[in-house]
Amino acid sequence: MPPQDLPVAPATAPGQPPYLDPAAPVDTRVADLLSRMTRREKVGQLNQRMYGWDAYRRTRRGDFELTEALSAETERFAGLGALYGLMRADAWSGVDHGDGPGAEDSADLADLVQRHVLEHSRLRIPALFVEEVPHGHMALDGTVLPVNLAVGATWDPDLYERAAAHAAAELRARGGHVALVSALDMARDPRWGRTEECFAEDPYLAARLTEALVRGMQGPGDHFAPDRAPVVLKHFAGQGATVGGRNSAESELGPRELHEIHLPAARAGVRAGAAAVMAAYNEVDGLPCSGNRDLLTGLLREDWGFDGLVMADGLAVDRLARITGDKVSAGALALDAGVDLSLWDEGFTHLEEAVERGLVDEATLDAAVARVLRLKFRLGLFENPRTRRASLPEHAGRAHSTDLARACVTLLRNPADTLPIGPSVRRVAVLGPHAATTGHHLGDYTAPQRPGTGTSVLDALRRLAPPGTDVRHAEGAGLTGADRTGVTAAIAEAAAADLAVLVLGGSSARTPGTEFDANGAAQTVVSEMTCGEGVDLAGLRLGTAQEALLEAVVATGTPTAVVLMQGRPHVLPDTPAAALLTAWYPGPWGGEAVAEVLLGLAEPLGRLPVSVPRSAAQLPVHYNHKDTEYGGYVDESAEPAYSFGHGLSYTTFDHGAPRVSGRTVEVDVTNTGERYGRSVVQVYLRRLIARTWPRTLELCAFEGVGLAPGERRTVSLAFDVPTGTDAVEIRVARSAREALDAVPVVVDLRA
Amino acid sequence: MPPQDLPVAPATAPGQPPYLDPAAPVDTRVADLLSRMTRREKVGQLNQRMYGWDAYRRTRRGDFELTEALSAETERFAGLGALYGLMRADAWSGVDHGDGPGAEDSADLADLVQRHVLEHSRLRIPALFVEEVPHGHMALDGTVLPVNLAVGATWDPDLYERAAAHAAAELRARGGHVALVSALDMARDPRWGRTEECFAEDPYLAARLTEALVRGMQGPGDHFAPDRAPVVLKHFAGQGATVGGRNSAESELGPRELHEIHLPAARAGVRAGAAAVMAAYNEVDGLPCSGNRDLLTGLLREDWGFDGLVMADGLAVDRLARITGDKVSAGALALDAGVDLSLWDEGFTHLEEAVERGLVDEATLDAAVARVLRLKFRLGLFENPRTRRASLPEHAGRAHSTDLARACVTLLRNPADTLPIGPSVRRVAVLGPHAATTGHHLGDYTAPQRPGTGTSVLDALRRLAPPGTDVRHAEGAGLTGADRTGVTAAIAEAAAADLAVLVLGGSSARTPGTEFDANGAAQTVVSEMTCGEGVDLAGLRLGTAQEALLEAVVATGTPTAVVLMQGRPHVLPDTPAAALLTAWYPGPWGGEAVAEVLLGLAEPLGRLPVSVPRSAAQLPVHYNHKDTEYGGYVDESAEPAYSFGHGLSYTTFDHGAPRVSGRTVEVDVTNTGERYGRSVVQVYLRRLIARTWPRTLELCAFEGVGLAPGERRTVSLAFDVPTGTDAVEIRVARSAREALDAVPVVVDLRA
Repeated sequence: MPPQDLPVAPATAPGQPPYLDPAAPVDTRVADLLSRMTRREKVGQLNQRMYGWDAYRRTRRGDFELTEALSAETERFAGLGALYGLMRADAWSGVDHGDGPGAEDSADLADLVQRHVLEHSRLRIPALFVEEVPHGHMALDGTVLPVNLAVGATWDPDLYERAAAHAAAELRARGGHVALVSALDMARDPRWGRTEECFAEDPYLAARLTEALVRGMQGPGDHFAPDRAPVVLKHFAGQGATVGGRNSAESELGPRELHEIHLPAARAGVRAGAAAVMAAYNEVDGLPCSGNRDLLTGLLREDWGFDGLVMADGLAVDRLARITGDKVSAGALALDAGVDLSLWDEGFTHLEEAVERGLVDEATLDAAVARVLRLKFRLGLFENPRTRRASLPEHAGRAHSTDLARACVTLLRNPADTLPIGPSVRRVAVLGPHAATTGHHLGDYTAPQRPGTGTSVLDALRRLAPPGTDVRHAEGAGLTGADRTGVTAAIAEAAAADLAVLVLGGSSARTPGTEFDANGAAQTVVSEMTCGEGVDLAGLRLGTAQEALLEAVVATGTPTAVVLMQGRPHVLPDTPAAALLTAWYPGPWGGEAVAEVLLGLAEPLGRLPVSVPRSAAQLPVHYNHKDTEYGGYVDESAEPAYSFGHGLSYTTFDHGAPRVSGRTVEVDVTNTGERYGRSVVQVYLRRLIARTWPRTLELCAFEGVGLAPGERRTVSLAFDVPTGTDAVEIRVARSAREALDAVPVVVDLRA
Repeated sequence: MPPQDLPVAPATAPGQPPYLDPAAPVDTRVADLLSRMTRREKVGQLNQRMYGWDAYRRTRRGDFELTEALSAETERFAGLGALYGLMRADAWSGVDHGDGPGAEDSADLADLVQRHVLEHSRLRIPALFVEEVPHGHMALDGTVLPVNLAVGATWDPDLYERAAAHAAAELRARGGHVALVSALDMARDPRWGRTEECFAEDPYLAARLTEALVRGMQGPGDHFAPDRAPVVLKHFAGQGATVGGRNSAESELGPRELHEIHLPAARAGVRAGAAAVMAAYNEVDGLPCSGNRDLLTGLLREDWGFDGLVMADGLAVDRLARITGDKVSAGALALDAGVDLSLWDEGFTHLEEAVERGLVDEATLDAAVARVLRLKFRLGLFENPRTRRASLPEHAGRAHSTDLARACVTLLRNPADTLPIGPSVRRVAVLGPHAATTGHHLGDYTAPQRPGTGTSVLDALRRLAPPGTDVRHAEGAGLTGADRTGVTAAIAEAAAADLAVLVLGGSSARTPGTEFDANGAAQTVVSEMTCGEGVDLAGLRLGTAQEALLEAVVATGTPTAVVLMQGRPHVLPDTPAAALLTAWYPGPWGGEAVAEVLLGLAEPLGRLPVSVPRSAAQLPVHYNHKDTEYGGYVDESAEPAYSFGHGLSYTTFDHGAPRVSGRTVEVDVTNTGERYGRSVVQVYLRRLIARTWPRTLELCAFEGVGLAPGERRTVSLAFDVPTGTDAVEIRVARSAREALDAVPVVVDLRA
């Protein structure tokens, strides 16, 4: 399919309408095009009804052909506004390496579809190809990055920005245009299966990473470079606050809690220029976000001045029929609230009727269409509908993924310096259901991997351990269930070893047995999933067999380093292992990163992006609760097991007394140990005199400082002071817990 | 102290100022008096700083004398606005039968104090004596009623109204004027130690009981009869929504959740004429209620038209200094927000300075003073400051308490008709830490009881069981801790018996070892307290020894009836007993009520006022969550162990198909069994077409129907339809769970 075949009218031809003139301002082009469109064509632009994988099939010759379903869709809408998930591959879509588009041919598929769309569009309006890029492009051969919660643990926006830029370049080189990325949900209840998609429990940390995401993926300027992609920030708003950690349930959020905790990441993303946001499933103050005009129009557009696109979450518009009584009214309600582009809904297909019945204004319809068209112009799709087949540097994706994995490994406990593994350790038993696998290290929203992709902890330890180290393995227990038959062999290995490395955790891997809701959330868990969308966990505990394995291995007396691979903080049995670290879901090469840290070839750089609770009974647990001096439950402490911001190092650091001048705090950081290391300087603010009741602490600045042994650096951090506050304390520390005891510097803002 | 000694000017004397004329309208009297007061005298009316027990001591002669502390207080304020807890007796106040005011002499004490106040008030303004009456007057010899959660289980507002009227009469006969009663807090998180003070998780049930409370205590009319008492409804607002069930912590409530769930009881209480409300500790949308003008003035006074008094909770005004920076500003903030009368604070003592510094208006001060004075005029205190020593019918208090106790006993499980105890049961083992006591059946906010008050389950069974029944006893386990040494003896008794009655539960008894915060909340729990103010429980489980006892007794194979005495729903081990009932904290004579139900001498009349969770990990659990069709956690069901409204009977009922006409639903109820019984007909509403996202179900009417065997009655219930709703379903059932499966009647409100 040669590129010149794509039926684009030459932009510079005389007599062409203004919208085809690439030199004209985007607004002019949008207005011109809009004025030429029929109502049916307009409605078509707002619909994204098809599953992308229904648009094509692979032929016996090995190339792709388009389906009748796609033809019906373009016929129905006189074109096509957007197509979701053309390259999506997973158990739900049923797309795998057997028949799905891979790295080598998905651009061809994209161009084939685009040509069809252009041919069926009277005005030659190209389609947007919208793809899931939650942690790398969720397509065959897409590079899998660590999940967002792991990114949060890096406390390193620059590192993440580079990885995000790579993911955007991969997406565009494959033919995708728009990246759907979770960024706005706050990890406030670890029972929620989508905790792995959150950056942090903290709005400041999440906001910095959201900015990095937008900068990395979109790049600068109003027009997107061919290797950059507009981002749809998911989900707006408050989805991390659904009661009980229940997926897409109600929130009970009041305005201030919403603004202080759940909106800062969105505000930062909008300020950074995010092209789009996705309206969340959950309600805010009684109205689901997709039907919440106060939120989507009052706050987002009017107060914040957002001029991008609002996409609804999958089938979220149709859900509104529960209160409107029918889907036509549901579509009208969503459009009127501020939704521009729907996903899979029927409701938005009836917008012609909705306008005719007076349920929504034509002007509202036009405004939504204009936003969709503007994005297409900003992408240059009218001029260049064809995929630009860039070849990215070999192994670049793997390098980005591994860098993030290394940076996310968080050492929580190491009182006897069990780690790094010393020269006296000659025999290591590598145990647990996560030891010899990579498939469960990837998180939800991940495409099937080609065999051989990634490195398990076991393989990496075998490769990287000093020559002569005897690295043994036993699985010991499955991820789920109570089958203890494997424990005996694991105990034998542990007892005979100098060190046991016990790799435990959860899994969000969607095996073929999993059943799904219409929106792709996991429904009946017949697999080993304990995390991911639709997989909420009440007790936060590992499987019974895993707990038994942990207790048995520790009981052997062999020093045991527990490594957790997880999409949420789990609660461990009351059996302290000699060392504990968490690698979250670190991606395919996470095993390598973990092995490097275990062996001391790399430093443990991660810091907790969430508080680790002692039990589910203690929830909610986060450091930035209100300052009520609550003393705890009669049967349990109010404090978490491990504090937000906590993470040990293999070296030691000294933080000098902080010096505050204006809105800047300076602190001298010295590496007082004998190894390189990176200290994350965390600046917390404590409001003293304020209009409303303050939180105990609020993170207001941070910076990672890499230092050689003995090296000292003065770090200068700017911080903002919230409005409505007359006096604050500034506290510099290495975790929220440490900040409680840190010497405060009082800043009187009235002075 | 003869009554004529009280220094009241004769009201009808010529030349007397208008405020002393009982025939003048209250507003005229208030305005006149206010115009004569100095600012210091005004501020004095708004303070309630002293602990009442510091105002007196018992002399060697056995009567009372007043303390220097009281003199200092009346001197300072040129009189006294209100005195808290003159008759309060408990471990915190240190008042007991040794030296505190009892039934026979507290009126003398009250009159002694009032005389002192009048003598030190230039304008002869009497003091208000404000007393805790949460479930009966918290004074020595005060009748203890079942706690509010037990009252909620009766679903019987009329019964409660009569008991409340009795409590008010007791209070007034003792010299108290104003009753502090919890009524407004919703039981939304059973971890909260004050769950026992809530009527229900449901706003409708709580609202009906709050109305009954106000009617019963206050009686009709603007002036209070001598046996009626103005009520301070506690706590306004949202205290049941504090995060994690943590006492007086923050809530995250949004406006609609606040209005739909947490305000209806307050709205009903205000409509019923409640004289006062207490501002809660917790914040609503970032501001503690005591400093929340939107709530106390915008909503309560302006929107609802409330013209009564607003009292702050203890030390709640001073707490505001956390955000204002000092207590003077804290007092000003609270007064400006709408607080009229403070409790124990320093902040309100500086209101003169606050006015002088311009922090609050004189007019605001005057308005607050006017509200305090108005209540004193409505009580007739200017004319009759002396206590009217009414003698109440003997045993009336006990009868009211026992009636409520009988009505609250809720049978949750009885699949093999183990209960009532049949004639084949010749030997009964009565076991457990609650079996032979009454002291732990009383709940928090209870005065010390005279020895011999009340009846234990063991004593009542011994007295009431058929002649020849061998009633044995072993304690088996303590309330708290893991000491299993008593289990063996208990197992032996159980094994040898035909039936085991195992009386387990929690305790809110404040033993002398308990330490307290400045506001009386329990602080360090060195006692057996597992519930009550300041005693929150994360895991909701009984003590380890109690759990061991339960499992061991059930394992004997002897049919076991478990009785729970508790201030919250507890989570039981996975060991189903043959029968399970809860008597909440049923009060001193609860043992009698329980024995009657066990023996079939009384029916189990109670219905659950709260959902019983399966575990703390599953929280929140309440029936009226939003209709999101959430499917449950991967490791736990989303459904409660027992549903709101559930409660078994010893007979059976048939409910006919409901007939809806206008806003009335009719249903035929038939007793199809062979015993008398009371069915609680519960009407649930399900919103179909609405402006906001609906709850799954909402209770909108209920009525208890007592029926003889074979008797049939048509019950007609009026229901309200919420505004903003175009269509609803009406479902009649015996529990919220049953309502989910009930055949709905659709009511189209547009028709």
